[in-house]
Amino acid sequence: MNYQSIRYIIGWVIMITAGLLVFPCIVALIYGEKEGWIFLSCAVAAAILGKFISFKKPQNNQIYAKEGFVIVALSWVILSIIGAVPFYATGAIPSYVDALFETVSGFTTTGASILTEIESLPKSVLFWRSFSHWIGGMGVLVFMLAILPFSGGHNIHLMRAESPGPSVGKLVPRLRSTAKLLYYMYFILTLIELLLLLLFGMPLFDSVCTAFGTAGTGGFGIKNDSMAGYNVCIQNIVTIFMFLFGVNFTFYYLIIAKKWRDAFKMEEVRWYTAIFAGSVILITANVFFAGGDFFVSLKDAAFSVSSIMTTTGFATTDFNLWPTFSKILLVLLMFGGACAGSTGGGIKISRIMLYIKQAKNEIMQSIHTRSIYSVRMEGKPVRGKILQSANAFLIIYILIFAVSLVIVSFDDFGFTTSFTAITATINNIGPGLDMVGPMGNYVQFSDLSKIVMIIDMLVGRLEIFPMLLLVTPATWKK
Amino acid sequence: MNYQSIRYIIGWVIMITAGLLVFPCIVALIYGEKEGWIFLSCAVAAAILGKFISFKKPQNNQIYAKEGFVIVALSWVILSIIGAVPFYATGAIPSYVDALFETVSGFTTTGASILTEIESLPKSVLFWRSFSHWIGGMGVLVFMLAILPFSGGHNIHLMRAESPGPSVGKLVPRLRSTAKLLYYMYFILTLIELLLLLLFGMPLFDSVCTAFGTAGTGGFGIKNDSMAGYNVCIQNIVTIFMFLFGVNFTFYYLIIAKKWRDAFKMEEVRWYTAIFAGSVILITANVFFAGGDFFVSLKDAAFSVSSIMTTTGFATTDFNLWPTFSKILLVLLMFGGACAGSTGGGIKISRIMLYIKQAKNEIMQSIHTRSIYSVRMEGKPVRGKILQSANAFLIIYILIFAVSLVIVSFDDFGFTTSFTAITATINNIGPGLDMVGPMGNYVQFSDLSKIVMIIDMLVGRLEIFPMLLLVTPATWKK
Repeated sequence: MNYQSIRYIIGWVIMITAGLLVFPCIVALIYGEKEGWIFLSCAVAAAILGKFISFKKPQNNQIYAKEGFVIVALSWVILSIIGAVPFYATGAIPSYVDALFETVSGFTTTGASILTEIESLPKSVLFWRSFSHWIGGMGVLVFMLAILPFSGGHNIHLMRAESPGPSVGKLVPRLRSTAKLLYYMYFILTLIELLLLLLFGMPLFDSVCTAFGTAGTGGFGIKNDSMAGYNVCIQNIVTIFMFLFGVNFTFYYLIIAKKWRDAFKMEEVRWYTAIFAGSVILITANVFFAGGDFFVSLKDAAFSVSSIMTTTGFATTDFNLWPTFSKILLVLLMFGGACAGSTGGGIKISRIMLYIKQAKNEIMQSIHTRSIYSVRMEGKPVRGKILQSANAFLIIYILIFAVSLVIVSFDDFGFTTSFTAITATINNIGPGLDMVGPMGNYVQFSDLSKIVMIIDMLVGRLEIFPMLLLVTPATWKK
Repeated sequence: MNYQSIRYIIGWVIMITAGLLVFPCIVALIYGEKEGWIFLSCAVAAAILGKFISFKKPQNNQIYAKEGFVIVALSWVILSIIGAVPFYATGAIPSYVDALFETVSGFTTTGASILTEIESLPKSVLFWRSFSHWIGGMGVLVFMLAILPFSGGHNIHLMRAESPGPSVGKLVPRLRSTAKLLYYMYFILTLIELLLLLLFGMPLFDSVCTAFGTAGTGGFGIKNDSMAGYNVCIQNIVTIFMFLFGVNFTFYYLIIAKKWRDAFKMEEVRWYTAIFAGSVILITANVFFAGGDFFVSLKDAAFSVSSIMTTTGFATTDFNLWPTFSKILLVLLMFGGACAGSTGGGIKISRIMLYIKQAKNEIMQSIHTRSIYSVRMEGKPVRGKILQSANAFLIIYILIFAVSLVIVSFDDFGFTTSFTAITATINNIGPGLDMVGPMGNYVQFSDLSKIVMIIDMLVGRLEIFPMLLLVTPATWKK
């Protein structure tokens, strides 16, 4: 284990956190809020701490998969612990566990909130809350790789451990250029959404926060009723952009590289679009026949499906009041999630595809016992190691889900609330059903349950292995 | 596809069904019930049909895995269709879909019932209902292999397709002897339970039906309150025997063969016992601290855990009224199920073990990238094909679960009822939570939902592949 490199990179992550804390200071300055001093103090403290930790350069900067996982997991834990301090110190969230829950929910782009009254909070606090989605969406280490001339060997392991999906590769040969390109596309898409929101009459501050929440597929609203109060055009813009941020960013890279044919041939994006369209049709029909207005049903169904599939979690309506069919369809979509290589969470469409293709092969195998079938994606055979890893992912995912469910059930809030609370946190969605529905809240859970859900959110965002390796004794043995 | 052999064996299965229908005739004769004539007519009709179909012997009696799956799936469908006729013809169940649901629930040892008033039914009908559990528990084709001097080649494929577990082998070199041995142990254990029940004061008819329901891990009661009305000794006997019938029958074979050391070394039986003990302790504590009497809590916890883990479904108490923690633990146990090679359903402990061991290997693999880890059971490495098949099982299981859940949700009975109804049918348990809790009922579901659950019960009992291959077009292509 290369402890020197771990220390060095963690130090840099803390310094970057300090840099990020400057943004809410600026917001506080604009709106003349005294909370700015607290953000500034946190930023300065973090900068000093980070500099101190990363002062001595490591002699050997080679890192491998194991170090990659550990660095990413540690970075996210530390980022969250520091990020929660302003919420606590400004008095916006009086309990530190609650503040940590809100922060982790922000960085992991979950959007599950313990706040019941949002609108009265200082603007700088609301900004920090939404900004955390934007950072967490593409990842803090990818950000670091993009902006710093990092000379370490095998830094691809950092990117692999932080980016979602069964197999993460580089878009362009150089890692730093890949990270830059990802953040460039991310920034441009966010900017376009921001401009469109402004165009359709959303105030500037709301637009910035909403764009952050959409881009990171986070879901923290700055209004108590989430997106319900905005006009239909704004709601539809958000629907479209949530969908766009759930697309594998390789798609946009291919578009930029003018490889149109390759872009539209991407199997995962096709499945993603088909699942989206099918679900919208089914839910619209269900809500319409249950007595809803057709166009309102269509708008709300499209918004909710987009919000849930991409694991954003914004709401225009309380889908907890919809018929069981629509609710169950949404819960299933929560597990599927968005595309790999997007900012969305969940199991990811590409993994679901791997599972379905494996299952199909196994059926064919038991009919034609002497033939050999291989799983193919985009026409290319998938390596056995990737399948094995995807299967292990599913198994560990189910185990962590089950254990979390049992612990949370101590709160005695019933099956639906307990089940969907874990579903909504481990998949980084935000809202579930019943007490954690779109108009519900996570504040009523015990601290034990909140800590379990904090872990689940991190497990979900980092796709299990980094967090798991962090706590496995074998990782730390010589 | 060897159509001749399929036809021939199906013919024999129908004749065996005819033979089984003679037993309720005898019961009707003893109790002087006119329903006896209906059972007799069904038996005669089935005998003629079966003889007609199996009249011409096949020239080639070689069957392979594919034929094995198809024969088993078809046998179970036909067995159920014939078995439902007496329920319908006697007027005990006025709807044929309901009668089919009850029959499939019987043969698959699920025990989910659409009957609201049980005690007033004729004894012969109640006997047939419970007897179907006993037949379904060990399997009708295993029964056939045991009693008929069947000369076909590769009949092991029939046994593999009907017997539960990731890898089914022969206990003794000859297949027929293995089938005989299984039914011998099954019969003796049932007999011991019957005698003990009689000893502790249960009436003869009740004892016979209860022994059938326990042995097959079925769960149909002959009282409206299931087992709640019997004395504590009887309840505890049932607790113990449910547990015993959930044990891998290889354990009993090893005991008979005096290989004590091997028997108690069986990894699956150890895990099964540990999960049982752990769950009983946790639920007893939870119910006790929620205000229950300690000994009553212990008795009911042991009974419920035994009943749910082995997928039997008898009840001494309405666990739907227990705290959320206990309920969720029971729901999780529903998925795990009993041992492979037992009469119980669910995913099976040995598969769960394969999953956990694979996951553990994957974690170790990402720490020590250059080492190679293999999954071992009982100290021996497990073949990749078995792992692949177990993984495909999990994936298809989840997919069928999800599709069923969506269809059943059309009935709009809420998340908990819909989710646990599918859980309780696909795992062959019987009771779920809320509307399908131990004191609830399946009669309120639409015919569409009932048909979905009928399929799920068969899918669960036969462990997916036979039913799936039956409806896959590729199976029937040249």
